[in-house]
Amino acid sequence: MKQQTYPKNAWYVAAMSEEVAGSKPLGRKICGESIAFYRSHDDQIAAVLDFCPHRGAALSIGYVEDGLLVCGYHGLKMGADGKTKSMPLQRVQGFPCMKSYAVEERYGFIWVWPGEQSKADRALIPHLEWADNPEWAYGGGLYHINCDYRLMIDNLMDLTHETYVHASSIGQKEIDESPVDTKVDGDKVITSRFMENIMPPPFWQAALRGNGLADDVAVDRWQICRFSPPSHVMIDVGVAHAGHGGFEASNDHKASSTVVDFITPESDTSIWYFWGMARNFNPEDKALTDNIREGQGAIFAEDLEVLERQQENLLAFPDYDLLKLDIDAGGVQSRKIIERIIAQEQQANVETVASDGPLQVISF
Amino acid sequence: MKQQTYPKNAWYVAAMSEEVAGSKPLGRKICGESIAFYRSHDDQIAAVLDFCPHRGAALSIGYVEDGLLVCGYHGLKMGADGKTKSMPLQRVQGFPCMKSYAVEERYGFIWVWPGEQSKADRALIPHLEWADNPEWAYGGGLYHINCDYRLMIDNLMDLTHETYVHASSIGQKEIDESPVDTKVDGDKVITSRFMENIMPPPFWQAALRGNGLADDVAVDRWQICRFSPPSHVMIDVGVAHAGHGGFEASNDHKASSTVVDFITPESDTSIWYFWGMARNFNPEDKALTDNIREGQGAIFAEDLEVLERQQENLLAFPDYDLLKLDIDAGGVQSRKIIERIIAQEQQANVETVASDGPLQVISF
Amino acid sequence: MKQQTYPKNAWYVAAMSEEVAGSKPLGRKICGESIAFYRSHDDQIAAVLDFCPHRGAALSIGYVEDGLLVCGYHGLKMGADGKTKSMPLQRVQGFPCMKSYAVEERYGFIWVWPGEQSKADRALIPHLEWADNPEWAYGGGLYHINCDYRLMIDNLMDLTHETYVHASSIGQKEIDESPVDTKVDGDKVITSRFMENIMPPPFWQAALRGNGLADDVAVDRWQICRFSPPSHVMIDVGVAHAGHGGFEASNDHKASSTVVDFITPESDTSIWYFWGMARNFNPEDKALTDNIREGQGAIFAEDLEVLERQQENLLAFPDYDLLKLDIDAGGVQSRKIIERIIAQEQQANVETVASDGPLQVISF
Repeated sequence: MKQQTYPKNAWYVAAMSEEVAGSKPLGRKICGESIAFYRSHDDQIAAVLDFCPHRGAALSIGYVEDGLLVCGYHGLKMGADGKTKSMPLQRVQGFPCMKSYAVEERYGFIWVWPGEQSKADRALIPHLEWADNPEWAYGGGLYHINCDYRLMIDNLMDLTHETYVHASSIGQKEIDESPVDTKVDGDKVITSRFMENIMPPPFWQAALRGNGLADDVAVDRWQICRFSPPSHVMIDVGVAHAGHGGFEASNDHKASSTVVDFITPESDTSIWYFWGMARNFNPEDKALTDNIREGQGAIFAEDLEVLERQQENLLAFPDYDLLKLDIDAGGVQSRKIIERIIAQEQQANVETVASDGPLQVISF
Repeated sequence: MKQQTYPKNAWYVAAMSEEVAGSKPLGRKICGESIAFYRSHDDQIAAVLDFCPHRGAALSIGYVEDGLLVCGYHGLKMGADGKTKSMPLQRVQGFPCMKSYAVEERYGFIWVWPGEQSKADRALIPHLEWADNPEWAYGGGLYHINCDYRLMIDNLMDLTHETYVHASSIGQKEIDESPVDTKVDGDKVITSRFMENIMPPPFWQAALRGNGLADDVAVDRWQICRFSPPSHVMIDVGVAHAGHGGFEASNDHKASSTVVDFITPESDTSIWYFWGMARNFNPEDKALTDNIREGQGAIFAEDLEVLERQQENLLAFPDYDLLKLDIDAGGVQSRKIIERIIAQEQQANVETVASDGPLQVISF
Repeated sequence: MKQQTYPKNAWYVAAMSEEVAGSKPLGRKICGESIAFYRSHDDQIAAVLDFCPHRGAALSIGYVEDGLLVCGYHGLKMGADGKTKSMPLQRVQGFPCMKSYAVEERYGFIWVWPGEQSKADRALIPHLEWADNPEWAYGGGLYHINCDYRLMIDNLMDLTHETYVHASSIGQKEIDESPVDTKVDGDKVITSRFMENIMPPPFWQAALRGNGLADDVAVDRWQICRFSPPSHVMIDVGVAHAGHGGFEASNDHKASSTVVDFITPESDTSIWYFWGMARNFNPEDKALTDNIREGQGAIFAEDLEVLERQQENLLAFPDYDLLKLDIDAGGVQSRKIIERIIAQEQQANVETVASDGPLQVISF
């Protein structure tokens, strides 16, 4: 039996809010599930299996009418609960109920729970303190990458790679030369690195200027990577003029931000990578937001080839034991937590079967 | 054992006549058979396995000389019967006889029988009354689509989809709201729908104008879909000024035509789709023929994504039982006939083996 | 078990020297092995498995520093012996030793031995008498083709195909009409064809002019194809004004050259094809070298579709017995030698296991 590689009973970012607009649905595969996302009454987000119960057409090529998803092939109208509401000249009461998904729009993202809807608890959607806060601004984007989502977690929990992959922007030799500290706190993992009295690399020079600060003086620099399941990584990054407290410095001595990474498995070897940056300086400066987004997009694009070639290599040598060095501890610990959650999920499935008899599969 | 999805002992359209011209062969896969079509003496069409008995080169990259297909690799000359006729400096009598195919050019199409040549009966090629008739004009084209050929039969035997897939051209809400009638007549299936006193949609407005008729008055509209095995669907479509007899109206009150669909399996999940329209008004107006072809081509292209996404969905959920509603009866009945024909074909194969001993396979 | 299709303990051309330049490695798959080629100290060529022992990144996307291959992901420094030399803040003594390859730069090519490094004998690299000889000039190029490397050997050991595939340049009917002679000499195969008193085809007319000779007179033409294992084919080709001794004619009566073909398997069904031409007339004329390269490149590109379509056909009919005619004897005999070498290689592997106990696999 194929090993499950990601939890399915978890909240994942499926899309940016603006990707599902008007009467046009969005079809996207999340954790192996083909899902049609659409806006129902009052722009309420809904998510159903992207499969028309009539003849198997992809519902996502249809359109929304009266809050229902109309199949673009023969006009079946699907409700957010997976039940067919109507179809021209047809009685639809006996139509099979299709799988629907717990889905929630929050913080400018559409969150989906690809597993069992009955287990979805909206309180588990992580709180993003920088979102909906006027003192912060956010900009970001989306990349599709052909790699196991855990390779991206490894990537983000070990920023040593900035020195090599992002040498011309955020990388600098001092990252490499500074030890890293990894802590596990329940289901969370925190990897941190602090560099004192170094010169800022180009990206941070620009950020200092963006905050009205001198860019040609020594700084203290920090990177604090925070993993939380299933696959979110928030990274506090920044520089402060040296000697003003570093990470703890006041805003008029530093340029800092939170790198936001939602890593959503599409399949075992591909991801939807939602990347962005939240900052709490000059939040109203939209040109700055655009500049940062453009710069970050170019930098993060440098990871694509690295990850896809790494994935190809691992598929060619599936039995090779990757090394687990201190710099890898963030990824290693994150993977342990993921494995524990997957095991719990599988155990729960076994217990459900034991207590309820054979699983009742909805539709198919 | 893999289920056979299409009859092989049947006539399929393999190409439009103009696709095989001069000394250049055409290589095309039909029902899983790689075939080289070429013009022999007097432009007579010929079809042989696209595989040179010498070293396996594709014969279709060669050329025709003296009525023989010359292999473009080392000059072997292949005859229409699959026998090598000559090769420079070689004695070819002992060369294996390759598979050749019954093939016939008729009505501007090249018809092939991909199964056993000895069973091919040219009288079984359907009679096309609109072809070779000066009162009719025909224009059409070819699309390659990645779907099971039966999905296209379903599509054409249930024109309800026009309301959704072709909303801006031939679709209109009244199609959806009108019941459909399905009849089985031996190996043929007929699905018909009649709509009275409705306004014509844009495509039919243009057709009325093309026939010199007012386009802004109410019409009676009809759709009569005729399936015949293995996979041909002819559809009588048209509009007549309301109250003049509809389908039975005289030519000076209507614009009507026959939609021509030859659906040829390439593989289990891909087709060569020959589409076109035959009309019996203003047959000499070539500009009108071109206009109609262009319009129909654009409309029929709208089906491609629908069918390919449906095919992907069905491959992902192979065990889902598609619904069989009244509107699906045309496709459902057509599939039953196809299944019966395939079963007969398999039974005949078994009997051949029983009476003749082990099957003699030609060449390989 | 899958049949081995190529020897691995053999020297193959992996690249042209200029493909590995400066600090940029070249990643290329040779005989199924993903290899990173790079220039170490003093431009010495090195070759290691293209797989970082740390986390599996492709080393070929990194760069060279201080003669070591730096992983572009986290800065591991790999030596030419497959041993990690250093990594920032890490102790690397315990890192697994990765596979490295015997590699040699000679005659403007990079030669690699994809099998067991301990068996690599540099004296086995073929001597190319035309290389490093000021009386000769060489120009060539590289094509990637999706075919079994043995199909290209067949192609080059039977030049009958020039009449068909290269009809407008080097082909002429007389090739076809002249018998061919095939000799086996140990591990070498020689196929030769001589044509007397014929008119030169366009490519050879140009070559005669390039050597200051009349191009509109009858010539004697020769083709002598020399296969040596694993997959090198050198072909003496040329024309001499008729009656001056043909192949043996002095340089002022002929235009002759050696077609150089190194056919390197990438996988079972794809190759790196290094083609070129060495000539010993006007060697200092670089414009002539460029002209010939351009002409040859266009001619040899005509083989690509032929070979790729042939490969597809053979994959579709894997059990078909290809014919073995006299013109095929060169390829047939070459394949026999290859089979014998593969069998010896497999036998040696078995003996190694028997005498040494279980094979010690380096790394994985």
